[in-house]
Amino acid sequence: MDPKALYSLSYGVFMLAVSDGGKVNGCITNTCMQVASSPTRLAISCLNSNLTCEMLKNSGRFTLSILDSTCTFETIKHFGLQSGRTVNKFEDLELPTDAAGIPYLSWATCAVISCHVIQAMDLGSHTMFIAEIDDAFRCSDNPPLTYADYQSRLKPKTGNSAPVQKKIVGWRCKICQYEYKGSELPADFLCPLCGHDASDFEPIYEA
Amino acid sequence: MDPKALYSLSYGVFMLAVSDGGKVNGCITNTCMQVASSPTRLAISCLNSNLTCEMLKNSGRFTLSILDSTCTFETIKHFGLQSGRTVNKFEDLELPTDAAGIPYLSWATCAVISCHVIQAMDLGSHTMFIAEIDDAFRCSDNPPLTYADYQSRLKPKTGNSAPVQKKIVGWRCKICQYEYKGSELPADFLCPLCGHDASDFEPIYEA
Repeated sequence: MDPKALYSLSYGVFMLAVSDGGKVNGCITNTCMQVASSPTRLAISCLNSNLTCEMLKNSGRFTLSILDSTCTFETIKHFGLQSGRTVNKFEDLELPTDAAGIPYLSWATCAVISCHVIQAMDLGSHTMFIAEIDDAFRCSDNPPLTYADYQSRLKPKTGNSAPVQKKIVGWRCKICQYEYKGSELPADFLCPLCGHDASDFEPIYEA
Repeated sequence: MDPKALYSLSYGVFMLAVSDGGKVNGCITNTCMQVASSPTRLAISCLNSNLTCEMLKNSGRFTLSILDSTCTFETIKHFGLQSGRTVNKFEDLELPTDAAGIPYLSWATCAVISCHVIQAMDLGSHTMFIAEIDDAFRCSDNPPLTYADYQSRLKPKTGNSAPVQKKIVGWRCKICQYEYKGSELPADFLCPLCGHDASDFEPIYEA
């Protein structure tokens, strides 16, 4: 099996926001699709290690800001490459909110969807949520940002500098700096912080 | 709620094939995404009225041919705009098969994934299948066909010719000619034959 075959699946890029017990949080995800009509139902998938996922399991409501082609890496970095466990990502932002009080993005967004969860399924690494739509509106005529655009255009280019003959003691995510302990990174590993895959990790050599 | 907000969700386009009780069938779908890792799991969603969906519920196995940018409308039409209940779509095609004997496309395809279903959820109009991967490989370096490409480039352009003052007695799908009986087509209606939405229907006027 060639895991790169899965890279041909097409996705959008979204800012998923939640509010639970007075706290607001959000993350970047690429996994949302419509899975039924009458009523319209969406499926989204969230890394279980993410605070957003934990809060969504409690609150059962979210907004999805569908990012558009004007999105910059700074926006992805702000919401996707740091954890709500250590930073309040919404603290200095004055964002609009939906009827349930959950914020959504006011820039780089072509549409916003407000949903409530009707079912959550734990799939191991991720939880998949099936949700129904409470509100949805368009914000811009810009085309949506696709995950392929993000990979080819937005994500910082990183070089491969590999010192030779030193023992590998861990792997560092080149996108968010998360460190994995151990000499071998599983091929299907996903960064528990930012969700990028094994190809975005670089070795950490012994001192 | 503006249903057009959902048009900003990004999708690929796939030929989903199944084999059940000696019969082979397939359809075109735009709904597949990876929803978990370790093990890798995919979610696909299928219209309940489709024969492919019915067969997949029985057999629990499928191939997904990820269509690429060289795909033509003829391929979409062959697999997506006629029903396996009236036509054997695979009869005159000599297609390769996976280890389970399920065919996949040998043209216009950048990658192929073979899966077995681990869970099926009836969501009303559609059934969502969670599946694990048995095999996956790449076939071309062409970029995947996106659903946005399909809508803007492949789908035939149809004019709006609206006679005035005649009573509407039904709606015809402009893509596959399916006819809906009744004067009002629900805004979230999906064609039970080809899956296109209400915007692809034209009125049928009284004779």
